[in-house]
Amino acid sequence: MSSHIKVVVWNEFRHELEDEKVKQIYPKGIHQVIADYLKKEQFHVETATLDEPEHGLTNEVLDRCDVLIWWGHRAHEEVKEEIVERIHKRVLQGMGLIVLHSGHFSKIFKKLMGTSCNLKWREANEKERLWVVAPGHQIVQGIGPYIELDQEEMYGEFFDIPEPDQVIFISWFEGGEVFRSGCTFTRGKGKIFYFRPGHETYPTYHNAEILKVIANAVRWAAPVDSAEITFGNVKPLEIIKSIEVGKTS
Amino acid sequence: MSSHIKVVVWNEFRHELEDEKVKQIYPKGIHQVIADYLKKEQFHVETATLDEPEHGLTNEVLDRCDVLIWWGHRAHEEVKEEIVERIHKRVLQGMGLIVLHSGHFSKIFKKLMGTSCNLKWREANEKERLWVVAPGHQIVQGIGPYIELDQEEMYGEFFDIPEPDQVIFISWFEGGEVFRSGCTFTRGKGKIFYFRPGHETYPTYHNAEILKVIANAVRWAAPVDSAEITFGNVKPLEIIKSIEVGKTS
Amino acid sequence: MSSHIKVVVWNEFRHELEDEKVKQIYPKGIHQVIADYLKKEQFHVETATLDEPEHGLTNEVLDRCDVLIWWGHRAHEEVKEEIVERIHKRVLQGMGLIVLHSGHFSKIFKKLMGTSCNLKWREANEKERLWVVAPGHQIVQGIGPYIELDQEEMYGEFFDIPEPDQVIFISWFEGGEVFRSGCTFTRGKGKIFYFRPGHETYPTYHNAEILKVIANAVRWAAPVDSAEITFGNVKPLEIIKSIEVGKTS
Amino acid sequence: MSSHIKVVVWNEFRHELEDEKVKQIYPKGIHQVIADYLKKEQFHVETATLDEPEHGLTNEVLDRCDVLIWWGHRAHEEVKEEIVERIHKRVLQGMGLIVLHSGHFSKIFKKLMGTSCNLKWREANEKERLWVVAPGHQIVQGIGPYIELDQEEMYGEFFDIPEPDQVIFISWFEGGEVFRSGCTFTRGKGKIFYFRPGHETYPTYHNAEILKVIANAVRWAAPVDSAEITFGNVKPLEIIKSIEVGKTS
Repeated sequence: MSSHIKVVVWNEFRHELEDEKVKQIYPKGIHQVIADYLKKEQFHVETATLDEPEHGLTNEVLDRCDVLIWWGHRAHEEVKEEIVERIHKRVLQGMGLIVLHSGHFSKIFKKLMGTSCNLKWREANEKERLWVVAPGHQIVQGIGPYIELDQEEMYGEFFDIPEPDQVIFISWFEGGEVFRSGCTFTRGKGKIFYFRPGHETYPTYHNAEILKVIANAVRWAAPVDSAEITFGNVKPLEIIKSIEVGKTS
Repeated sequence: MSSHIKVVVWNEFRHELEDEKVKQIYPKGIHQVIADYLKKEQFHVETATLDEPEHGLTNEVLDRCDVLIWWGHRAHEEVKEEIVERIHKRVLQGMGLIVLHSGHFSKIFKKLMGTSCNLKWREANEKERLWVVAPGHQIVQGIGPYIELDQEEMYGEFFDIPEPDQVIFISWFEGGEVFRSGCTFTRGKGKIFYFRPGHETYPTYHNAEILKVIANAVRWAAPVDSAEITFGNVKPLEIIKSIEVGKTS
Repeated sequence: MSSHIKVVVWNEFRHELEDEKVKQIYPKGIHQVIADYLKKEQFHVETATLDEPEHGLTNEVLDRCDVLIWWGHRAHEEVKEEIVERIHKRVLQGMGLIVLHSGHFSKIFKKLMGTSCNLKWREANEKERLWVVAPGHQIVQGIGPYIELDQEEMYGEFFDIPEPDQVIFISWFEGGEVFRSGCTFTRGKGKIFYFRPGHETYPTYHNAEILKVIANAVRWAAPVDSAEITFGNVKPLEIIKSIEVGKTS
Repeated sequence: MSSHIKVVVWNEFRHELEDEKVKQIYPKGIHQVIADYLKKEQFHVETATLDEPEHGLTNEVLDRCDVLIWWGHRAHEEVKEEIVERIHKRVLQGMGLIVLHSGHFSKIFKKLMGTSCNLKWREANEKERLWVVAPGHQIVQGIGPYIELDQEEMYGEFFDIPEPDQVIFISWFEGGEVFRSGCTFTRGKGKIFYFRPGHETYPTYHNAEILKVIANAVRWAAPVDSAEITFGNVKPLEIIKSIEVGKTS
């Protein structure tokens, strides 16, 4: 049932190569862990990383992509404007986009939101509990009232994003903050899901519930086969009196 | 793919029995035309009407219903409070609800909206053009930039509903009005779609695009298999200092 | 500047008369503490309570009321349907409504929301921290990044309300839950603000920031002098071709 | 009551200098007509135009500006990135922004929306009727059920913007289209209002109701004196167990 959806999992893929701790958790990279899970769920999955030519996101790759998953952190500035424009155009055309964790500061997410996407943060191995606040939403299929993560980085409000279409998760943090951790947006024909957890020094993407949410979000964000949008100058569909009587300038 | 979704098409079924003009357009009733189409689309379909015992909406029927479609007009007041309560409870639990045309004034829709659901109206055989304003939404799959109906009853703004989750269609009327003709709402775990067209004296439910929108809406509104919601008094998930030191009242 | 806004503070006023602990905190009732503050802020203020005739909410009182503040808890069922209808009608006409704390379960709030308004709760003297998530909103004028309350009752998600127009506050609770503690809604021409804190056994309405939020909300919810809404059958504003050619039924 | 609000009316100011027809309608420029009205309404008003140094929008001007009104059309590309960044930053800090008519394609509006902001259009001297769909909103104070303009340029859906916070006006056009003509958005602490009418070849900004809407929108968009938003690394507000036991990395 998921097999016709084509997913590209994009990862910056730097921490995993340079940081021993991260390498131990994600020896083949965060993208591979997510891709392996999605393959088991019968999606058609590709991966792409920053240091590939065109960041692995050629026109061919993006043209066949239904849903793009994005993880980036320390190298947002290295993502080329041209590729950001290409992704942006595809989202408006209907490609789904799932932005994970520190991807909140990626060029593509900031461009789509129109805000700073800034927030508070802290690395203190603290507990996060993600409460479901939209229990009928497709993204929480099979998920209980909350997801608990023993140790995560904290992101705290105010999170400078536009009012989401729907808030799906709100996080409680041991250190005293809250965060809108799962948010949906629509831009053009494209559906966007921001999902907060996933700091590179924690095994978050090995968590079965986190993976299930990502798979649900892929299904939700897949494009709909609706009419192509047309813009620009158009003829009237009804008679305009001023035209009838020859008043048009 | 749609066959697992169980739909109940409910119709007041009075006009078709009493009004010659309506009988000619819908000899077996509006519900049958919609039900026949949905069956072809592989849904599991039942019908129910006002004058059946319990309006055809027994606990058994509603318990197995994934999505309820509602058409009513002149006999809203005859729908029993007890049945309205029953439907309301099921929507909050996740049953989808599609409210058609004059169902805007049904007890169940007004109860779910919390407003008067009042509007302007006129019967003058005028043209309606429903413009798509959410072109990436599942409900407009396969639909072009607009749907045109040669003759319909007019409904005009202000339409007294809460701000919808998303506006899908906005109607243009020949006589000079506009209307938010396709609106989505969430109540509890239930998804609701209000869809304006469908006055009984016009063959609107024989229109292929109108039927396609209804089928899309059924797929969209079908419940998600998420955790049951629990409410009420709960124990803390974390240690509360006042409890530790015995201060709790 | 606030003096032209007419506020009615409504209170159930039972706990304060029957419970020693509550009486000590609010000897004249919760309504008096709020009313006294609003008077200092130059509003025109009246109070009303459950056990007055018509619950103190006669047609005359409601007709001159710009914003109604509502606190109720144990006696929701004693509020007469007739008075609920009266308030409902006035909200749709533009009267602002501020629902405090356990008023989430009042008849008027449930009627306006269309949902169960149910939630999780616990009385354990725990800390609540209300984070501002809409920092540009009129309701948080003069408020910092959060409000902290040393001891409050806990309300936890899932809170069964429709998607708010805007979420203004999200609460963090010591015991591990979160809650959408400040939410705005529009119903008809009326603006509604739900504000969570204020359990009767804590001195919450003596807190300067909580009072400031209530005063800000009154200013925000005051009605706008816009045109009266008209509904019903209307003549066309443009020529309809079918009418011209005599086709109208 | 409006006198403390500082408004800057920005205009491209090219059509009025180069096109005879436009010059006759707005001899001193669109900005002067709007500015003159707002001065009568007791606002503190300045104007700024494209061909002034820094487009008239120096840091000093923007720092003291509460609400910026923007009219641009043919020279969007000439607006310098640096000035766009400056305006964007100020909006996130709380400065209100009112974008008029063809300003939908300005750099600043597209940057704040994150979408193409594209639409359909036609110049055919056709009738526009703007229906109020949020009758309790401050922006429609003193406005009836609709505003009628005898001749305007047409803008038609699909309008590629994110779901607005609230839709205030929906336009009916003689030629058969509809348009979300009045839309509110929040970005950071800033309030944004997009207001469609105002093509340069029509006397739209001499219309009393259009001017009233603009003045109402200025009052609505004026910044609120709330706490400065802080972002970045923060200390915990509560004890984190992992820190207590020295586990922090």
